Amino acid sequence: MSKYPPLSPIVAALPATVPFVGPEAQERDRGGPFRARLGANESSFGPSPRVVERMQAIAGDMWMYCDPDNHDLRLAVAAHLGISADNVVVGEGIDGLLGLLARMYVGPNDPVVTSLGAYPTFNFHVAGTGGRLVTVPYENDRESLDGLLAAVKRENAPLVYLSNPDNPMGSWWEADEINRFVESLPETTMLVLDEAYGELGPASALPAIDVARPNLIRMRTFSKAYGLAGIRLGYAFGEKQVISDFEKIRNHYGVSRMAQEAGVVALSDQPWLQEVVSKVEAGRQRIAAIAHDNGLIPLPSATNFVTVDCRRDGTFAGKILQSLLSRDVFIRKPMAAGLDRCIRISVGLDHELDILAEELPGAIAAAKGN
Amino acid sequence: MSKYPPLSPIVAALPATVPFVGPEAQERDRGGPFRARLGANESSFGPSPRVVERMQAIAGDMWMYCDPDNHDLRLAVAAHLGISADNVVVGEGIDGLLGLLARMYVGPNDPVVTSLGAYPTFNFHVAGTGGRLVTVPYENDRESLDGLLAAVKRENAPLVYLSNPDNPMGSWWEADEINRFVESLPETTMLVLDEAYGELGPASALPAIDVARPNLIRMRTFSKAYGLAGIRLGYAFGEKQVISDFEKIRNHYGVSRMAQEAGVVALSDQPWLQEVVSKVEAGRQRIAAIAHDNGLIPLPSATNFVTVDCRRDGTFAGKILQSLLSRDVFIRKPMAAGLDRCIRISVGLDHELDILAEELPGAIAAAKGN
Repeated sequence: MSKYPPLSPIVAALPATVPFVGPEAQERDRGGPFRARLGANESSFGPSPRVVERMQAIAGDMWMYCDPDNHDLRLAVAAHLGISADNVVVGEGIDGLLGLLARMYVGPNDPVVTSLGAYPTFNFHVAGTGGRLVTVPYENDRESLDGLLAAVKRENAPLVYLSNPDNPMGSWWEADEINRFVESLPETTMLVLDEAYGELGPASALPAIDVARPNLIRMRTFSKAYGLAGIRLGYAFGEKQVISDFEKIRNHYGVSRMAQEAGVVALSDQPWLQEVVSKVEAGRQRIAAIAHDNGLIPLPSATNFVTVDCRRDGTFAGKILQSLLSRDVFIRKPMAAGLDRCIRISVGLDHELDILAEELPGAIAAAKGN
Repeated sequence: MSKYPPLSPIVAALPATVPFVGPEAQERDRGGPFRARLGANESSFGPSPRVVERMQAIAGDMWMYCDPDNHDLRLAVAAHLGISADNVVVGEGIDGLLGLLARMYVGPNDPVVTSLGAYPTFNFHVAGTGGRLVTVPYENDRESLDGLLAAVKRENAPLVYLSNPDNPMGSWWEADEINRFVESLPETTMLVLDEAYGELGPASALPAIDVARPNLIRMRTFSKAYGLAGIRLGYAFGEKQVISDFEKIRNHYGVSRMAQEAGVVALSDQPWLQEVVSKVEAGRQRIAAIAHDNGLIPLPSATNFVTVDCRRDGTFAGKILQSLLSRDVFIRKPMAAGLDRCIRISVGLDHELDILAEELPGAIAAAKGN
């Protein structure tokens, strides 16, 4: 037998891409570990010690299936936000929820609007539906609300993506600007507002919670400020009917029992969260100072990373990145035109930022030299 | 605003069903816990103590993202099966992989063949693609290989599902029968062979590993014999090109770091697996004896549950089930015509089977009485 069963047309047309190469893959390729892990916007400060204790205590319970309703966690999220559990759906990180949302609102050839250089995994999941991406350039290193709105109207798009605070630039809009954008959208367009970094920026950037609007869904994660990237846990909240539509296609047993319990405890330890937020703020200042010391320009950040303008073109910034990698410092960089002059450095532990401070001058010199 | 953004036609046509109501939801409805958890085919014997230790040791590492390549686990699975890591894809349980497989091979209105009363979550994921289910009745409490083959050929189906050993009946085919079935399939039809219970039945039921065939994908799980249902971890193996096609749509960061590490250690502790297999065998005999003692007929089982013929119709078996639930004994039952005369009892701990033995006579009497 030599023939393959035919793939469905949508899948047959797709490349076998991986949205992000992980640091572990890079370490395998390099043949050794990084000394500073500053590239994946993780929280080096870890999860709350109470979360760790809980995970250790329940490890032996993992023979039991997870609760497919995510009941306790949805209740905890709802209490945290002051909404009903019916307004909350839980998934395997925001990534998993974005994949479902794309399938819910996008069919073959439907236009989907996002910013050029914004979250690649959203684009990946749109491609998986056969949808057609329409990208809008950033303006002054922010996602362009006017540009996104114009594209949505021109294309009659069923779905538009906006992250606030933004990745990879670390920029943000204040809540009143976001609200104006939301209110200007056609009612036939669903907005996914990705607030993965929501806990790490100014509170003024987060619109008041309103779960009455049928064309807005907001997503948050335990991967960033809560320090649980490895457990795969995120949630979305919005209008009840919209939330219940996830039931039609989600993997009901997708979120592990470990993740569900970890999430409940993580939400209950807000003092830990505030401690992390303070440490992240201090780390951003340290990275900014290191950038300044090296003649680079740190951009303002509402996230757990600082995007640094290297003041030349993308090739130059790419050389700095490569040189840092070769010096065992894992960072990433924006790739889209206009943004690619930058490198992106996650807040890490003090000793990791010491290594950054030691290695950055040499990396810049090497980038200038070849 | 009152309008909803329109759902994609496929999703709009779906009901918001949950394939399985979990025992936790039943406990919330009842207002109290079950005394015996014998309904979800979990492994009450738990995971290997070495797995538990490992999970406890790495709980604090969960701030790091998981490896999107699942590199170490795929290598471990490959070594376990004697194949290449390129022949292995990992997912959030078999459920997650079935969802991807349906999207890979099924488009709107495409016919998909399965057995009437077989795994509902497969059906759920097929519905999510807009595919059309074609069901074949069981024959003598086994999935009908001849019937499935005839339906595949009649419908020119791109995808057919077969579980071996089977759920919910516990029955199985020997490997040579499975091989004959595989070889008879049109090369345009993909067979998904669900071997979730593969470690628990006779070795003679598992075909030799052959990853050269482009129209066969086999799936296994850590949820059953390995005792890790709550961690969400399964894998599929098959021909390299077929496996790489999963890359096009899978949630690359879907399987947690905890699950990946647990899986590696679980595979390394085969003595624990053999101990569990022995305990399951003893538990099956105990359940069979309890059934006999009560005038019911236990069916032969190659799984970690025993399906018990209650010797009347589905209504009667349903009453026994309800009565057991009211006596704090969680079990489930097949629902399809012809199979619904049965109840399905998972192997549990000795004290849970004691409770079953105590409560079953009363449950049968109650079912007869009303």
